[in-house]
Amino acid sequence: VTSQDRHQVVVIGTGFGGLFATKGLRREPVAVTIIGRTPYHLFQPLLYQVSTGILSVGEVAPTVREVLRRQRNAEALVGNVTAIDLIERTVTSRAAGLITVTHYDTLIAAAGAGQSYFGNDDFADFAPGMKSIDDALRLRARIFGAFELAELEVDESERRSRLTFVIIGGGPTGVEMSGQLAELSRHSLNNNFRTIDPTSSRVVLVEAGATLLASYGPKLSAHTKRALERSGVDVRLNTAVVGVDADGVDLRLTDGSTDRILAKTKVWAAGVTASSLGGLLAAQSPAKVNRSGQVLVESDCTLPGHPEVFVIGDLMALDGLPGLAQVAIQSGEFAAAQIARRLQGKRVRAGFRYRDKGQLATIARFKAIGIVGPFKLSGTPAWLLWLGVHLIYLVGFRNRVTVIAHWAVTFVSGARSERTAPSDEFYQD
Amino acid sequence: VTSQDRHQVVVIGTGFGGLFATKGLRREPVAVTIIGRTPYHLFQPLLYQVSTGILSVGEVAPTVREVLRRQRNAEALVGNVTAIDLIERTVTSRAAGLITVTHYDTLIAAAGAGQSYFGNDDFADFAPGMKSIDDALRLRARIFGAFELAELEVDESERRSRLTFVIIGGGPTGVEMSGQLAELSRHSLNNNFRTIDPTSSRVVLVEAGATLLASYGPKLSAHTKRALERSGVDVRLNTAVVGVDADGVDLRLTDGSTDRILAKTKVWAAGVTASSLGGLLAAQSPAKVNRSGQVLVESDCTLPGHPEVFVIGDLMALDGLPGLAQVAIQSGEFAAAQIARRLQGKRVRAGFRYRDKGQLATIARFKAIGIVGPFKLSGTPAWLLWLGVHLIYLVGFRNRVTVIAHWAVTFVSGARSERTAPSDEFYQD
Repeated sequence: VTSQDRHQVVVIGTGFGGLFATKGLRREPVAVTIIGRTPYHLFQPLLYQVSTGILSVGEVAPTVREVLRRQRNAEALVGNVTAIDLIERTVTSRAAGLITVTHYDTLIAAAGAGQSYFGNDDFADFAPGMKSIDDALRLRARIFGAFELAELEVDESERRSRLTFVIIGGGPTGVEMSGQLAELSRHSLNNNFRTIDPTSSRVVLVEAGATLLASYGPKLSAHTKRALERSGVDVRLNTAVVGVDADGVDLRLTDGSTDRILAKTKVWAAGVTASSLGGLLAAQSPAKVNRSGQVLVESDCTLPGHPEVFVIGDLMALDGLPGLAQVAIQSGEFAAAQIARRLQGKRVRAGFRYRDKGQLATIARFKAIGIVGPFKLSGTPAWLLWLGVHLIYLVGFRNRVTVIAHWAVTFVSGARSERTAPSDEFYQD
Repeated sequence: VTSQDRHQVVVIGTGFGGLFATKGLRREPVAVTIIGRTPYHLFQPLLYQVSTGILSVGEVAPTVREVLRRQRNAEALVGNVTAIDLIERTVTSRAAGLITVTHYDTLIAAAGAGQSYFGNDDFADFAPGMKSIDDALRLRARIFGAFELAELEVDESERRSRLTFVIIGGGPTGVEMSGQLAELSRHSLNNNFRTIDPTSSRVVLVEAGATLLASYGPKLSAHTKRALERSGVDVRLNTAVVGVDADGVDLRLTDGSTDRILAKTKVWAAGVTASSLGGLLAAQSPAKVNRSGQVLVESDCTLPGHPEVFVIGDLMALDGLPGLAQVAIQSGEFAAAQIARRLQGKRVRAGFRYRDKGQLATIARFKAIGIVGPFKLSGTPAWLLWLGVHLIYLVGFRNRVTVIAHWAVTFVSGARSERTAPSDEFYQD
């Protein structure tokens, strides 16, 4: 078969789902085109380590085409998908004014989820999210810049506001981010300042619900809360954020009372919403989207009425599966395997079965929590497991080499060696 | 002596000059305040490796206050110096609206040099310079982005223009940058693309003068030209850039003829101009500035009429010393030593003596040129020397660890593991 005659697979999205679907097709007689809004694959679970100065951008975001360089049947394209035509079977994408139309025989929609401000898009300027390299470097400039400016500040209440960090959202990202910020101010900035005392910084984690890390169950949730509090994090449960501006956040508690925290630096780790491509697919098919914008798929991850279209990862709504890397990876591999079975004339699987491999979240250096099968772990054993699992799943041998070097630096000395970010704009004027 | 009574030294600038002056004062009974426009010390000679995907930003730009954390008599402040008062002996600086006035007994002005577009500031948008982390990441996004967009381009001449890189200026930065770009397109992007052939990229190095690396003498200059040409660089000597726009550059040769190169990506490595603080100092003293904005100093690096003000590094004009890291380092150490001698009541030195330790420039992996004492080196021996010297001068043990990891990745495999930069803006629309 020549490449023209080959079965054409288009994959939209370069996250875990899209990448593992593409890799799953490496030995199949197909031509895969993977289209991403950015040229890189983002290892999102470690993005908070970029914001807090531990890892470099290349380590968590290798270029997709470099990752796929040996997979000759795959081509990576950068582009924002602007249209999908389910009749003509084409995907239209656009990057820097260049429009590309790509034909598919099978489509894998793995466009994932973006930050959601629950309709309050004006919060975004003041509380960047945690979804891209641009976000992470913006936050890195703000976090380390907050301490720099506090050192210059003569007004005591302004200085306190510069040394207050509010993290909105008590899921894994919010917990890991607040744990890191506490460690940063308690340990990593040792001896760095002459006027301020970084250990006097306030880190406030605000969660609208009644627990942190709800999916870990009440015992580990309570453990996490205690561990964060021991690290110096002020954990506010049952507290909704109703306003975010340059100077602080406005809160409303479940009892109806209100509060305001003065804080120059805010991080949004609260809501996600599926890519708008879900709506684009639903509009042309019998499919429906849920409130988060995810597409309600058939049990085999296909779009209702369109067996040639798979919807996977965070864009897919199936059996209430959570928005985890593992769900994306496994649904991506499943879609690839189904395509292979179809092309080989084999019997396809009736439905996707998610195999829960467990969950892990770090709270601080040497401290993590996890669920692995029937076991609930915490403390150093969980942290060591976290370390191993993340090294295994990091994409690319070369990245692992430098990540180990950076982790050695941080975990041995407590210091951060990747504190610099573009900052012309931050300090300007 | 309490810190209030201590002799106050203010250092302006966190480059090699400012940092080594500060470090030179670490055992003296002084209080040093070092003020920089950015919070980081930039190892400028390796900045081109950030742009071309070899090193991370933290590796070439450690935070000044982290570098100085153990030097208890030094305080680092971020701020753009807006005024110097030689009568009141104060320095006024500003960052994000916060104004700081710092008193000095001795001032060390080490504000260095910035990019000069020789009056054509409109070139800056199209041809970023090589002077800051912001510059380097902007260039990284453009360089790797050029290949990404070329892969999408259907128009043949537009594609050629996207795969053409023009480097303006044949000094060390221009030579190293064009050598790297040649290597990047010839080797590092192997197997990355399916449509374009990155090895067909054009790298053009444009120099207005008759030789590359003029300070290395005719033999090594000619060697460099040949080596670059063998790597595939199109070297254009005696060629001035008279126009830069989004689509290309306009050239004028010394014979009066003109030419135009269509190229989307341009890098400005041509001119430097001293910080405007030179003019600020000259306006209040008998000192004069030269055409490059450098202050003509006394033989002991002090400002004429103001023995309490040292002007060092790139901001200083003295005996025609070149704008090299070594000149900045040695003049910084000299200023520190003079201050120590004065405070100890010892006899000060009459003048600064520069000790030429030689020069080194890389052309490609395993290829460099250098002058060390009476020896002129080239090829692998020069490259190994370059490697050693840069590791020694890199600031901080931790950075050296990860730089070695990144260099191992690049020099062994040829690949680049730091290709990702903020790119939302680049691909937008």
